[in-house]
Amino acid sequence: MPRPVFNGMKQRLLTGLQSSGALHIGNYFGVLKPFLDIYRDYESHLMVADYHALTSLRDPEALRANIYNVVRDYMAVGVDPNECVIFRQSDNQDHTELAWVFNCMVTVPFLELAHAYKDKVAKGLEANAGLFTYPMLQAADIALYDIDVVPVGEDQRQHLEYTREAVGKLNRAYNAELLKEPKEMILEGVGVVPGTDGEKMSKSRGNTIPLFGTTEEIERAVMSILTDSKGDRPEHVYAIHRLLKSEEELAPIYEANKGRYGDLKKQLVADLEAFIAPMREKRAQITDADVRDVLTAGVEKARTTSHETLSRVRTAIGINL
Amino acid sequence: MPRPVFNGMKQRLLTGLQSSGALHIGNYFGVLKPFLDIYRDYESHLMVADYHALTSLRDPEALRANIYNVVRDYMAVGVDPNECVIFRQSDNQDHTELAWVFNCMVTVPFLELAHAYKDKVAKGLEANAGLFTYPMLQAADIALYDIDVVPVGEDQRQHLEYTREAVGKLNRAYNAELLKEPKEMILEGVGVVPGTDGEKMSKSRGNTIPLFGTTEEIERAVMSILTDSKGDRPEHVYAIHRLLKSEEELAPIYEANKGRYGDLKKQLVADLEAFIAPMREKRAQITDADVRDVLTAGVEKARTTSHETLSRVRTAIGINL
Repeated sequence: MPRPVFNGMKQRLLTGLQSSGALHIGNYFGVLKPFLDIYRDYESHLMVADYHALTSLRDPEALRANIYNVVRDYMAVGVDPNECVIFRQSDNQDHTELAWVFNCMVTVPFLELAHAYKDKVAKGLEANAGLFTYPMLQAADIALYDIDVVPVGEDQRQHLEYTREAVGKLNRAYNAELLKEPKEMILEGVGVVPGTDGEKMSKSRGNTIPLFGTTEEIERAVMSILTDSKGDRPEHVYAIHRLLKSEEELAPIYEANKGRYGDLKKQLVADLEAFIAPMREKRAQITDADVRDVLTAGVEKARTTSHETLSRVRTAIGINL
Repeated sequence: MPRPVFNGMKQRLLTGLQSSGALHIGNYFGVLKPFLDIYRDYESHLMVADYHALTSLRDPEALRANIYNVVRDYMAVGVDPNECVIFRQSDNQDHTELAWVFNCMVTVPFLELAHAYKDKVAKGLEANAGLFTYPMLQAADIALYDIDVVPVGEDQRQHLEYTREAVGKLNRAYNAELLKEPKEMILEGVGVVPGTDGEKMSKSRGNTIPLFGTTEEIERAVMSILTDSKGDRPEHVYAIHRLLKSEEELAPIYEANKGRYGDLKKQLVADLEAFIAPMREKRAQITDADVRDVLTAGVEKARTTSHETLSRVRTAIGINL
């Protein structure tokens, strides 16, 4: 993993936020928690990727709601807007401008090789030109802020390769170190988060525990955890419990309630409630106006950096006067 | 041709300017003069297409010089910046932003069918993604200003079809008349302008008379006009002379100098000089600062319109908050 501090300066990190609907605790332990653990060690930039979303979402109400929701989600789990830059891609026109410059640097066959594009087309999603050129908008998202590291999943390494390639092509075409080539950072989550059926927790399997669920929703989810009548310990209950408490903490509880699945589930409900309630309540207090204020302040900071970067590029390519 | 005034309002016209080096009188009579004749009848927008140029020009000095030169050219031949809006594409980020939105509306196969792209690739020009998606930047250039008409050559009709298609797709996707579909206007030049060898005047044939040439350059070009020793009238001299004077005006001159090719060429030099000198002198007086002032004032006006258009689009697609 790249070091957060280099030559006495915090390294710059960018992550793109896109809402994919209501979060579950699998998202929390797999993605949000690992990010929460490190984001203060970097100069972190959290960008709401709404113009990315437009490549596959033509529902204005949903798109707008997703913007509010994803910011609310991150703030509710504990991301502090004063400790990072939270902004929206579409609030800073430097993104689409630099994306255009990158488009002029890379070939069509190069973009045709992008996994994300090929996969989406294979899945039957319309091959629109936004989807096709998205890697260059992403390259702009990253390069504009002199970003050092981008947290990605193991399967997303190629995204960063596309950014490095675009940056490298521009730098070579104008024979100058105009932009920085970022590195990927593979964040280590807890591994697979088990759902109520013991399989990986995922929305499509319907085996989730909602991250901001009400007490009733948590109870319902826990009651649906599959248990078998054999053995002393309900393994699926225990597996979820382990996300919240250590083996040492759980040992006496499971010993005292051996075979009493109902009581163990009640204990899990109580522990989930204690974990979720503060985030749920915090989330409920964040108004639309709060989100707008955060994004407005964020983009002001973001623009300060991006204008400088873009100005360097404009001068190099001959667009300045 | 679309009527310049409709319902008591001037129609809006946009033309993209790109320098292709030193102009010759073939450019003047074929393109500039027909434009000069009509531009005041419309609310005319002249856009320096420098981000278009980037698709094929990676020489910053040349790109920058072309920006100054093309504005100087248009002003020198008589375009009055107070009677139209002269601005630069790269000075208004609304262009690349709306281009992104259009990219999300059209398919890759649709862009693959664009003549301009196919032709350039066939000529061996690198198939960069800027060239590939250029029709969507062009669609943005036009749609941002609620443009009614775009003057194009007969061979450029497809450009407007791409714009109409992009606009139509956006309007239909959001079920609203967000943007206007422009019409093409085929400007009628004088037809083929003959060069010094009697063939169509073109830089590649080296048979041109420079539009802003010095007296010596004009003399040299005229002296190189091919004449044969047969007949009373040097036809190639006469053909160029006809661009400047009517048959009636020329008849007595050619009658008085029958067979005296040298004298007729001198007469043509004098008439060319009288035609060219005022433009040449005007051009020499236009400083870089003048060009910058014109573009600065122009983009202020341009932005007023484009911001309104883009704001309409942003609201419709769900990008506003």
